[in-house]
Amino acid sequence: MHYEFLKGHGTENDFVILPDHDTAVHGELDAARVRALCDRRAGIGGDGVLRVVRTEAYAAAREHVDPAEATWFMDYRNADGSVSEMCGNGVRVFARHLVEAGLVDAGAPIPVGTRDGIKTVTVDGDAVTVDMGVARVLGGTMVSVGAHTWPALHVDMGNPHAVARVESLDPAGPVGSLLESPAYDPEVYPHGVNVEFVVPRGPHHVEMRVHERGSGETRSCGTGACAVMVATAIHEHHGTIGSPPASDATYRVDVPGGSLSITWTTEGRVLLTGPAVLVARGTTAL
Amino acid sequence: MHYEFLKGHGTENDFVILPDHDTAVHGELDAARVRALCDRRAGIGGDGVLRVVRTEAYAAAREHVDPAEATWFMDYRNADGSVSEMCGNGVRVFARHLVEAGLVDAGAPIPVGTRDGIKTVTVDGDAVTVDMGVARVLGGTMVSVGAHTWPALHVDMGNPHAVARVESLDPAGPVGSLLESPAYDPEVYPHGVNVEFVVPRGPHHVEMRVHERGSGETRSCGTGACAVMVATAIHEHHGTIGSPPASDATYRVDVPGGSLSITWTTEGRVLLTGPAVLVARGTTAL
Repeated sequence: MHYEFLKGHGTENDFVILPDHDTAVHGELDAARVRALCDRRAGIGGDGVLRVVRTEAYAAAREHVDPAEATWFMDYRNADGSVSEMCGNGVRVFARHLVEAGLVDAGAPIPVGTRDGIKTVTVDGDAVTVDMGVARVLGGTMVSVGAHTWPALHVDMGNPHAVARVESLDPAGPVGSLLESPAYDPEVYPHGVNVEFVVPRGPHHVEMRVHERGSGETRSCGTGACAVMVATAIHEHHGTIGSPPASDATYRVDVPGGSLSITWTTEGRVLLTGPAVLVARGTTAL
Repeated sequence: MHYEFLKGHGTENDFVILPDHDTAVHGELDAARVRALCDRRAGIGGDGVLRVVRTEAYAAAREHVDPAEATWFMDYRNADGSVSEMCGNGVRVFARHLVEAGLVDAGAPIPVGTRDGIKTVTVDGDAVTVDMGVARVLGGTMVSVGAHTWPALHVDMGNPHAVARVESLDPAGPVGSLLESPAYDPEVYPHGVNVEFVVPRGPHHVEMRVHERGSGETRSCGTGACAVMVATAIHEHHGTIGSPPASDATYRVDVPGGSLSITWTTEGRVLLTGPAVLVARGTTAL
């Protein structure tokens, strides 16, 4: 069976997109097929698969989203074939595809169904913005690499983060190569944690590296960048853990794969803006 | 400009294939475009690009090959954009494409033009065989990883190899992770060397890992597997460095990305047989 695919990325977090509007092509979508598609040598290659289905056509989508509120559902799978709720870079690429394929009106906010509920995405030229929801700032903790330990802020973006402000991101320095997971407090993070290291680069501008649980160091992590922005805004400005800023705050957050712009609103919502690029389309029988 | 591509691999040595029969699409093919295509996150991803051109249509091809002897020329580029002469896994994938696209007759040996001259490829179902030419066995040398040193055989397959027989390929053992180049004798290898580590697995069956100069450890190296086969045949059987076997000898050589079958003929030629798979086709504007 030959079927259609696209390939795209957001700040080098890359995805195989599978149009399957009525689930007629892939049914439940086997984990083995996801692994074959994401294989970077024997397949097409990607950090995950974004299947494009109509919410009303897919029972697993209707468990999370009302088809009347979101026509399209992002059926996200990790490269290992497992299911994931959401991906801040993936949902931008997903929305880019909806617009380019003429499946939605680019002029209006796009409600995208996910296993974490409906995400509202706005496409404005090169920039795609997704409302990532409310950040929960849960207090201080510690993270370590080798003999070095840093204080970190525990930020929950639907998934857990520990954000540590450091002197340098140089792989030759204390943060190191991040080939292994940094050490963390398992009582704070019983299911593991994504650890971000951040250095200031200028006014409202930081740079980060991230170690994602289960994946190792990655080129970009959307929720991680949001957690970094919130932790930095707290550190540099209003200083009150748990309350949003008095006026909307926007930071540039550089990741190894590019640059993101993140706004923390007075209502406590986090808006993630960044590129979303489709680089190829074709057919495969993987 | 949107143009056609395919993606394929041989034992997980993977390539972006660019049909460009009359060089009208890509002209001289920019190094920057090759790098963009081979980028595994922001592009399609591959170890190299195989451009498919008619020998008579491309001046750089005619420098190496007579158009009357090989209609098709494999314009091979490394992922970094540099030119390379030949690739034993790539030329099998190239021939697979010529057959599947109906550009040649699958029933006969296919002469493929390369910067290393004409290579004859035979496609027989899943198995694709390429005549890699004559192995030159040039004597003994030594290679080291950390504190461990092994005797090695210097085999030239058009490019230089050092083949070391070891006790174990385990990354936790003396061969290690191969993150850095093994040490070698720079007087023997002034331009660097590809180093193969090999263990016997059974009668006429070995397994190898390879560190390719400029690339690090790879999933497969066609010339490296040929060098390993020749070194093993000398070690296990006729024992005379420099002379081919009294009767054709065939070995199975397992690489991290799959399995190859290699024959050393009584004339000293090395025939490399292995899979060649096309996994996707489409269009891109990279």
